[in-house]
Amino acid sequence: MQQLHAHIKKIRPLDQMAMGLASIRQTQLAKPPASMGTLEHMAVQMAGISGKIENRIERRRIIVLCADHGITEEGVSLASSFVTVAQAINMTKGGTGMSALARYFGTEVQVVDVGIASEYDCPQILNRRIMRGTHNFADQPAMPRENAVKAVLTGIELAKQAKDDGMDIIGVGEMGVGNSTSASAVLAALTRMSAQLVLGCSREVNGVALSKREKTIQNALERYHLDPNDPIDVLAKVGGLDMAAMCGVYLGAAEHRLPVVIDGFVSAVAALCAARLCPTAVKYMFPSHAAEEPGYHVAAEQLGVSPYLNLHMRLGEGSGCTLAFEIIGAACAAMCGMATFEEAAIDDSYLDDVREDNSFLYSLDA
Amino acid sequence: MQQLHAHIKKIRPLDQMAMGLASIRQTQLAKPPASMGTLEHMAVQMAGISGKIENRIERRRIIVLCADHGITEEGVSLASSFVTVAQAINMTKGGTGMSALARYFGTEVQVVDVGIASEYDCPQILNRRIMRGTHNFADQPAMPRENAVKAVLTGIELAKQAKDDGMDIIGVGEMGVGNSTSASAVLAALTRMSAQLVLGCSREVNGVALSKREKTIQNALERYHLDPNDPIDVLAKVGGLDMAAMCGVYLGAAEHRLPVVIDGFVSAVAALCAARLCPTAVKYMFPSHAAEEPGYHVAAEQLGVSPYLNLHMRLGEGSGCTLAFEIIGAACAAMCGMATFEEAAIDDSYLDDVREDNSFLYSLDA
Repeated sequence: MQQLHAHIKKIRPLDQMAMGLASIRQTQLAKPPASMGTLEHMAVQMAGISGKIENRIERRRIIVLCADHGITEEGVSLASSFVTVAQAINMTKGGTGMSALARYFGTEVQVVDVGIASEYDCPQILNRRIMRGTHNFADQPAMPRENAVKAVLTGIELAKQAKDDGMDIIGVGEMGVGNSTSASAVLAALTRMSAQLVLGCSREVNGVALSKREKTIQNALERYHLDPNDPIDVLAKVGGLDMAAMCGVYLGAAEHRLPVVIDGFVSAVAALCAARLCPTAVKYMFPSHAAEEPGYHVAAEQLGVSPYLNLHMRLGEGSGCTLAFEIIGAACAAMCGMATFEEAAIDDSYLDDVREDNSFLYSLDA
Repeated sequence: MQQLHAHIKKIRPLDQMAMGLASIRQTQLAKPPASMGTLEHMAVQMAGISGKIENRIERRRIIVLCADHGITEEGVSLASSFVTVAQAINMTKGGTGMSALARYFGTEVQVVDVGIASEYDCPQILNRRIMRGTHNFADQPAMPRENAVKAVLTGIELAKQAKDDGMDIIGVGEMGVGNSTSASAVLAALTRMSAQLVLGCSREVNGVALSKREKTIQNALERYHLDPNDPIDVLAKVGGLDMAAMCGVYLGAAEHRLPVVIDGFVSAVAALCAARLCPTAVKYMFPSHAAEEPGYHVAAEQLGVSPYLNLHMRLGEGSGCTLAFEIIGAACAAMCGMATFEEAAIDDSYLDDVREDNSFLYSLDA
């Protein structure tokens, strides 16, 4: 924990001067004030992260944390843990949904094993395995506290590596059968909400009754007396190695001033763990899409982020990050690529009448 | 009108066979069923438009219709009509918000004058001017009915040109000071809603009271007795040349089986005009972002489209289309670039246990 606290202590606030200058630039651009909405905020936030007004999103990486979940023994998912390893391998070959999106946009994908249960032979998967999947938290804590800390430190290291490799932005993805159930348990513990509220009112997911998940989570909440102010304890007792490592990626991104994109439900819960460890870390985060799981909205609201995309996705893997990278990149390009009123007027010297009116030209929208 | 009806008659439904095959393919891909949400629908819709399962979005064009609005004489906008021409020229130089986004993504921009009032010298603007801006509809109809028809036909021609030029998708943008007021009047007429409902409950836009717009529109609605079933009449009496031409672009896109993206408020109202002339045309439309103007949501609901992006933008120009092109392109790439269960299993021959379970592997989400 000492090592973890040392990292957290290095997380600094955003650069207020750069953000102020970026905000001023937004008012000088040839457009009605604030008419580019959230794109303007994104570009200002990027300035605060990098300390520069001009930012380019060229190198992008999705870090996919893969791990198995012992809670699948309770039948909360029909898919077996073989799917975790099969899809992790499929990712290295470009065959999953996220992979296809990443390839379309030229985004790098880093697949990391932090706790896959199965044996496999795939050197393209980075081996950072901490244990062979978590224990079944219906029987015993998912993992020892030191393993949760190790997983968080692994995530921090992966973010540092991305910075060292010259990434301009990273996104956080996951692959782990059973992680929706673990994430729901973590979210319920962090928010003191009931399992029912976190899971939402739909009664089944693809044919399996949610009542099973709900009961499993509610039992665990009652058993472990989890402290919402100790996210490491919550992750250790009912979380997963994927989530703990994701939490670390967020913290490491903030430490190394690297913008980081949240994907779907599990990713948002991991972000909330990071936020509870260090509220300033949220300033380095960007949302992507509004995931279909009701719990996503609980986590997003707690984080104070408002997703850009509304696509009813619930794939995970970092799929939504691929799309958000393009939007954030475009936001930065717009702030730096648009003409200011002055520039437009200088170029268009025959528009003298317009230039005289510059001061209030855009005081109203068209 | 005869010429227009001849075009409308050529608009055919989507290819149900191609859509069926695309839907089947979606169920075979290595992902939980429907987990890619709206991305799956986009790829299926694209199949219905092109008649092919594999579709690529390579060549993209924003068609920006520029025109002035006589209603600005009533003081509904502070900006003068000089801004229309200044920004149209700024677009050809890549200096507006939409231009910067389009450049970032390598999207073509075609700037078309269908009714700019000012004199200017800019050969990069395509001259399809029908009249020098509309009349002030507070005094007289905005334009003769034959000019509205001419503008719609011009839009149809522009869509055909895009198809002939090899575009894979187009987007519809506009530039015209005063067009928010005209679009609000058209929307109120088409939906029989009051000006107040269409404008929403905010009391001002950038310093000018909306009550002025509201009164102007309400007076016009009472004066002209507009028929919601005759969108050409509505466009002629209280609309604009930009909107009429945009309506034509949507119809032409449907006629020539070209996917077309709706931008913001004015663009959505023009789409609704096209939908009233030919409901099938909507099948060729894709939304982009949820524009900030309350009227956008009224138009989107009437069209039955649900925007992908939530960015609080109200710039217009076709700015939102640039982002939607990327999402739609990614959706097509995902459907064709992902491994099927079978393909993944064939490639991963050591995963025999997984392959045996293939039938229900993804019957539950992870």
